[in-house]
Amino acid sequence: MLKRDYEDQVCSIARTLEVVGDRWTLLIIRDVVLGHSRFDEFLDSLGIASNVLTDRLNRLVAEGVLERILYNKRPERFEYRLTKKGRELGPVLIALMQWGDRHVSDKPPRIARRRSDQSPVSVRLVAKDGSALAPGELELVPGPGARPPQPSKRKRAAPTRS
Amino acid sequence: MLKRDYEDQVCSIARTLEVVGDRWTLLIIRDVVLGHSRFDEFLDSLGIASNVLTDRLNRLVAEGVLERILYNKRPERFEYRLTKKGRELGPVLIALMQWGDRHVSDKPPRIARRRSDQSPVSVRLVAKDGSALAPGELELVPGPGARPPQPSKRKRAAPTRS
Repeated sequence: MLKRDYEDQVCSIARTLEVVGDRWTLLIIRDVVLGHSRFDEFLDSLGIASNVLTDRLNRLVAEGVLERILYNKRPERFEYRLTKKGRELGPVLIALMQWGDRHVSDKPPRIARRRSDQSPVSVRLVAKDGSALAPGELELVPGPGARPPQPSKRKRAAPTRS
Repeated sequence: MLKRDYEDQVCSIARTLEVVGDRWTLLIIRDVVLGHSRFDEFLDSLGIASNVLTDRLNRLVAEGVLERILYNKRPERFEYRLTKKGRELGPVLIALMQWGDRHVSDKPPRIARRRSDQSPVSVRLVAKDGSALAPGELELVPGPGARPPQPSKRKRAAPTRS
């Protein structure tokens, strides 16, 4: 598995995957967007082991992606809602869904839409002027949080011939 | 782990995660966008075990996300490039990066930009009229590829009192 501390990964993609990179985690977040909020609903929807679900929910609450709300005192029952930080994962979910609709599913199993007017929603890469990006046009370059290049840590085999 | 065939998951998010849901896989794709193309470059960049890297590269080639190109005959050496299908994962990467820049990294370690004019690139949820979506406005509803609701497969405990 990936090291948890990512010492070699000064990268917001790697850091985000450290929070949501477990597949169950993204499916739990999807379930909350679908309207599920209770432990038993997630259990039914995902077919996940309950100890694994407990662990993932606790982690998402600790990370501030979900909040846990008491809705019944006796017996004590909680429901889970997305925080603002959690709602901001929407583009990740829709980007995954859009790719799957295009490349893996025959017909879209779900439609993403805007609550207020039911307008279909899509995810787009846009440049600063708002124009859509062609897929081959994307490049990643070092930003202000980059570290200077490090020497390779991997041992290279000595050349067998000189 | 998640079942490979997702019989209960008629969902393009789950199906996409079946292809790219392993964290190494998304970091390999990130590395290709960063300009890496060779086995040793991935090994250096990721600190991944070489057998795991071989497995993930083979899988991505089999899925049509990467293509393997012979660049040297003796010894036989290959490089890896994104296919069109692979390039279309750009919005997934940038959505993950944008969330990490906002919530996990102090300063952006990398900048996403458009190759032609170096304009900064962001990912947006947009409605059909092109207007940006507020985070709480997203909803997911059944689409044409949805199955009718299935009865729960989880055994419920019989009530202890009537």
